[in-house]
Amino acid sequence: MDTVARPFSPTVLQRRTPVPSDLDIAQAATLKPIGQVAAELGLREDELELYGPTKAKVRLEVLERLRDRPDGRYIDVTAITPTPLGEGKTTTTVGLSQALGAHLGQRVATCIRQPSQGPTFGIKGGAAGGGYSQVIPMEDFNLHLTGDIHAITAAHNLCAAAIDARILHEAGASDEQLFERIFPKGKSGRKFPRSLQLRCAKLGVTKGNPEDFTPEERRCVCRLDLDPAALTWRRVLDTSDRFLRGVTVGLGEEEQGFARTTGFDIAVASEIMAVLALATSLQDMRHRLGAMVVGLNRKGEAVTAEDLGVAGAMTVLMKDALKPTLMQTLEGTPVFVHAGPFANIAHGNSSILADRIALKLADYVITESGFGADMGMEKFFDIKCRVSGLVPDAVVLVATVRALKMHGGGPKVVAGKPLDAVYVEENLELLRQGLPNLLHHIRIARKFGIPVVVAVNGFATDSPAELDLVRRASLESGAEDAVVCQNWALGGEGALDLAKAVMRVCDRPSNFRFLYDLDEPIKQKIETIAREIYGADGVDYSPEAEARIEAYTRLGYDRLPICMAKTHLSLSHDPTLKGAPTGFRIPVRDIRASVGAGFLYPLLGKMATMPGLPTRPGFYDVDIELETGRVVGLF
Amino acid sequence: MDTVARPFSPTVLQRRTPVPSDLDIAQAATLKPIGQVAAELGLREDELELYGPTKAKVRLEVLERLRDRPDGRYIDVTAITPTPLGEGKTTTTVGLSQALGAHLGQRVATCIRQPSQGPTFGIKGGAAGGGYSQVIPMEDFNLHLTGDIHAITAAHNLCAAAIDARILHEAGASDEQLFERIFPKGKSGRKFPRSLQLRCAKLGVTKGNPEDFTPEERRCVCRLDLDPAALTWRRVLDTSDRFLRGVTVGLGEEEQGFARTTGFDIAVASEIMAVLALATSLQDMRHRLGAMVVGLNRKGEAVTAEDLGVAGAMTVLMKDALKPTLMQTLEGTPVFVHAGPFANIAHGNSSILADRIALKLADYVITESGFGADMGMEKFFDIKCRVSGLVPDAVVLVATVRALKMHGGGPKVVAGKPLDAVYVEENLELLRQGLPNLLHHIRIARKFGIPVVVAVNGFATDSPAELDLVRRASLESGAEDAVVCQNWALGGEGALDLAKAVMRVCDRPSNFRFLYDLDEPIKQKIETIAREIYGADGVDYSPEAEARIEAYTRLGYDRLPICMAKTHLSLSHDPTLKGAPTGFRIPVRDIRASVGAGFLYPLLGKMATMPGLPTRPGFYDVDIELETGRVVGLF
Repeated sequence: MDTVARPFSPTVLQRRTPVPSDLDIAQAATLKPIGQVAAELGLREDELELYGPTKAKVRLEVLERLRDRPDGRYIDVTAITPTPLGEGKTTTTVGLSQALGAHLGQRVATCIRQPSQGPTFGIKGGAAGGGYSQVIPMEDFNLHLTGDIHAITAAHNLCAAAIDARILHEAGASDEQLFERIFPKGKSGRKFPRSLQLRCAKLGVTKGNPEDFTPEERRCVCRLDLDPAALTWRRVLDTSDRFLRGVTVGLGEEEQGFARTTGFDIAVASEIMAVLALATSLQDMRHRLGAMVVGLNRKGEAVTAEDLGVAGAMTVLMKDALKPTLMQTLEGTPVFVHAGPFANIAHGNSSILADRIALKLADYVITESGFGADMGMEKFFDIKCRVSGLVPDAVVLVATVRALKMHGGGPKVVAGKPLDAVYVEENLELLRQGLPNLLHHIRIARKFGIPVVVAVNGFATDSPAELDLVRRASLESGAEDAVVCQNWALGGEGALDLAKAVMRVCDRPSNFRFLYDLDEPIKQKIETIAREIYGADGVDYSPEAEARIEAYTRLGYDRLPICMAKTHLSLSHDPTLKGAPTGFRIPVRDIRASVGAGFLYPLLGKMATMPGLPTRPGFYDVDIELETGRVVGLF
Repeated sequence: MDTVARPFSPTVLQRRTPVPSDLDIAQAATLKPIGQVAAELGLREDELELYGPTKAKVRLEVLERLRDRPDGRYIDVTAITPTPLGEGKTTTTVGLSQALGAHLGQRVATCIRQPSQGPTFGIKGGAAGGGYSQVIPMEDFNLHLTGDIHAITAAHNLCAAAIDARILHEAGASDEQLFERIFPKGKSGRKFPRSLQLRCAKLGVTKGNPEDFTPEERRCVCRLDLDPAALTWRRVLDTSDRFLRGVTVGLGEEEQGFARTTGFDIAVASEIMAVLALATSLQDMRHRLGAMVVGLNRKGEAVTAEDLGVAGAMTVLMKDALKPTLMQTLEGTPVFVHAGPFANIAHGNSSILADRIALKLADYVITESGFGADMGMEKFFDIKCRVSGLVPDAVVLVATVRALKMHGGGPKVVAGKPLDAVYVEENLELLRQGLPNLLHHIRIARKFGIPVVVAVNGFATDSPAELDLVRRASLESGAEDAVVCQNWALGGEGALDLAKAVMRVCDRPSNFRFLYDLDEPIKQKIETIAREIYGADGVDYSPEAEARIEAYTRLGYDRLPICMAKTHLSLSHDPTLKGAPTGFRIPVRDIRASVGAGFLYPLLGKMATMPGLPTRPGFYDVDIELETGRVVGLF
C-alpha cells in the first residue's frame, strides 16, 4: 500500500539583520512536529519512531513498501580544499534543500552525517550548517541525537573487551577446559549459537553436535590463539582525548603479564561507523560486523568478530542505530541524519540506507560528502556508490573566495584567531593565484562522468569582481554552471540560483564511471588515486606498507576498494601544500584493512585518529541558563 | 491546571506452563502505547517525550504542576544478603506493583534503576525482573534505553580529557599566554563565562572585567596547577573491560613526558551517576556537577569540574538524562526507570526525581534499592532520603530459601553452574542455620523506624515447611508481616498477599530516623555503620585512609554522609563470611570523596570498580534472527 504525502507547508523564516548567532537563530526557530515533516514526505506514522517532538527514527520497512517507486535525482555536495574553518558545505547543502523545497515546490530530502561530540566540545564547534541554513534543533543535532554514535562506542568496546579477556582466559585454560566453557551443557545439549556454527564452518568442522568433536577439533574451534602483537582492533570514545592516543592496558593486579600497548580512536573512526554507513540491511550489517578482522592468530590467519562470538551482540547493540534519524531545516524541509565518519580518516559519507529511503520519497536528494572532492567525494563514488549501486546525477562543488585566496598564497588561516586583512578586502590577484585548486576539484568530479555545478558561498566581504572571477573561471574549466549563494544570510531564498542550476543539470544525461576496477592490484588502485585525484607523481611505500600489501593480498583482501587516510587541508598528503600542488610523491606509511566495512585504508603520512583539546576548548562557553534551562554557547 | 487520569486498564497476562524464558515472555507480551500508560497515570501529553512507541521521558515540569498534591505511600524493596544469582528483588518489586495496580485497583508506580550494559553482556544478564513480573520491552530496558548511561559516559570522559589536556597545556605556556587563551578577546571584550566567574569568586578575585586582573590574579585564575599524583578522576565505560582497570595514558608521541597511570571504572560507578540519582532539579545538577572534585593542586587544595570550565558542558550533555524514562510492566502498570548506580561501589538507588514524580502521581510508589538492606537500603535512608526529605512508609525485604540455605552453610552458589542438591530439596536444618541473616536484615530496617514486610520469593522446589519456617521466623523477629510470593510464575496474582500486607502496614504510623548525624566526625559515622549495620566489632584504618580523613576534614568534607563501598555478598567486608557474622573488624583501605554527589566513600577491602568478562560471556548467545530481526539470547 502506498501513501499520499501531505502537502508541504514551508516554515517562513523570520530573518534579522545582522544575522544572529547560529544558536540564537536555531532557538528562535519555529519547529514543525516531526510527524508532520514525515507525513509531508510521504512516510506513514507506523514507519516512525519518535524521539521527542522534533526527531524520529525511520523504520527500514519503508524501503519494502516503496520498492517499486522510481528513485529521485541524486546530488552530492562537495567542496574545494577547505581552510580549517570549513567553507560552508553543510550550510550550502541545507540552503540548496531549502530553496528546492520551500521556494521552488520540489519534493526534496537532505542527507547529512551526525557530528562527533569530540570536535563539538573541542575546536570546531557544531556542524548543523549556519546562519539561516541550519538543521534544527541544533542542540539535539550536535549532542546525543538518537544515540547512534553511543551505540557504536558500546559495540566497538565490547569487541575490544572480548579480545583482551579471551587472550587472558585462553592462557589459563587447557583445551578441554576451554571447550567445556565455550560449549556449556544446557538442558537440551551443548549450546551452539550461530557465531560458533559460523566459526566451525570456516574451519571445516561440519559436525552438528559439539559433543562429537575430536580433541583436535575442540582445540581449533575454541582456541583463537590471538597474537597480541598482531591485534589491529583498538578502543574508541566520542571524546577528543589526546591522552588516549597511546595507552598501556592490563596494568591491574589480576591482569599481570598481559599488559599491552594500544590506543583509542575517536568513535566516528570506528570500523563499525563505516559499516553503519555502508550496510544495506540489518542482515547485511550482521554479516559485515561478523567479518570485521580484529587481528591475526599466531599462524598469521585473520581472526574476526565472528570468531570472538561477539558479532550478534554488536548487531543487537546497533539495531536501532541502523534506522536513519529524521529532522528538519529552518524552512521545514526534511533532513535524514545518519552515520558520521570523518572523510580524512574514514570514508566520510552518510549512510546508504538514508540515501535510499530519501530517493524513494523525494524528487531531489541532496547528500553531503566530507571535506573536498579529493576526499569524501572520491570515496562517495568509488566506495559508497559501488556498494549501493546508486548513480548520482550531479555534483555541487562549494568554493569560497576566502579559501581560494589562501590557496593563492594568503596567510595561514587558524580557527579562533582573527582573519588577515587580505581575506576581507578585494584582492583579485591572490584570488586568481588560488583558482587552480578549484579547477582541479572540477576536473576530479568530471573524471567520474558527473556534471558539476560550482556554488560560491558568498561572504559579505567578497567583492562583485571577486565573485565574478570565480564564476567565470569555473565555467571555463568545465563546470556546467557556477552561481553565487547567499543562503547563510537569506536561507533558501539565497540559494535559488543554485537550486535552478541543479535542476537544469540533473536533466542532462550523466555518464558515471568508477575511477578504478576492484580487480586491479592494491598498488595500482592506490597509484591511480594518487595520480588522477591528488596530482601526485607517484607513491612510495614504507616497508610496513609493503608487508601489509603482501599479507592482504595473501588473505584475499586485495579486491577491496581503497579508502585513503589523508589530510583534508591539501590535495597532497602535506597540509602545508596549498593550491594544486605538483611534483610530489605520496608516502604510504601503513595500510589497514576494514574487512567488514569493505575497504583497505592506506595511511598517508601522520594521520591523527584522535583529536585533542586546546587550552580553552569550546566547552568553556557551553552551559545552561539557570532560570530557563536554555542551552548557551553551542556554535 | 490539573489533569484527571484516564481509567487504568490492566494488560491481561497470557500465562503458559512451564514458564517460558524471560525474553520469550517479554516478546510475546502485549504493550500498551506508552502515551496510554502515561495518561492513565495522570501525565499530560506535553509532559512526555516519546522514544519510540513504548518508552518516553517525563519532563520535570510535571513537578511544578502537581506541587500541591499530597505524596503517595513510599515503599522501598530490599533483600537479605544475596547469592551471586540474585534473589528476585526486581521480580518482587514488579510483581508487587502488578498486584497493587492490576488486581487491587490501586494507583501504583514502580521506580527502578537502569541496568549497566557491562553485566548484561558479561555474567549477570538482564535486570528487568523475570518470569511474569518484568518491565517491558526488556530489550530496550537492558540495552541503550533512552541513552542516560551514554550521556554519563560522555560527560565523565569529557572531564577526564579536560584534566590531562589542561596539565599538558599549562606546562607549555607562560602565565600571560594562559590568560590570553583562557580569556580570549571577542567583539565585546574578553569572554567571561559563568564557570570562570565562579572560579574567580572562589579565589576572591571580584573584578568584573578580566582586563583589570593583576598579573598575580591572572596566574592564579588561569593556572590550575593540578598535581598529577593527586588526581582522583578516572575514566569510565559501560563495558565490562577488565584490561582498563589499570592503564597508562599519554603514550602518544605528542604527549611525551606526561604519561601517567590511571584506570577506567564501569560507567554506573561514575560520580555523575550518583549526581543524576541525587539531583533535585536541573539547577541542582548544574551545581553538583561543578562541585565534583577531580583532584588536588600542588598546594593540596581541591580542584573541581567548575575550575576546569567543563561543568556547564557536562550539564548540557546530561540535561535529557535528568528526565526519568517511563515504561510498563507485563500487566501494564507504569514504571519509572532512572539512574543506575551499583549498591556496592555506589549508593545503589534510582533517582530522587523519579521517586518525587511518582509520589505525586500514584498512591503507592514501589522503589527498589540495590543488594541487601546493609547496602542499598542503608544508603537509601541515610543518603537519598536525607537529600530528598522524603519519608518512606514501609520496607519490603525479599528472602529466598535458596539464599538462606547458603547462609546456613550450603555449598557455594556460582552463576552458570548447576545448583547443589541441598538447594532443590527440603532441608529445614540448613535453612534454620541460615535464618540469622534474615533476622539481621529485619533488625537493620527496624533501626530506621520503618515497618518491615518479608517477601519470601518462592521457588517451585521450596517445600511448604521451608516456606512456613521462614515466615514464622520473620514474624517472631519483628517483621510486621511475612508472605510467600509466586509472582515469577503468576505475575501480580502471585503477589496479592504481599500487596495486601504492604497496604495494611502503610496505614500504620512509622517513626523514621537516620542512623547517624552529619555533624559526627567521619570516623564516628563509619563506625556506627560498621557496628550497627554490619555487626562488626570495630574499624581499622590504613595509613592512606587516615591521611584522607585528615585531608577531608581539613577541606570541610567531613559533614558529608558515608557511602560504604563493600561487598554485597556478606554483611561483613569478606564475601566468604555468610549468615550473620560476628567477631570481625572492618578494614578501611582508602576513602574517596564524591563532593558533587555529596558523600564520602570508604573502600572496605578490595572492591573492583570494573567488572570483567568470563571465558564465555553472555554475549555469545545474543543475536538477531536474520529473517525477522528479533533479538535472541538476552536473559
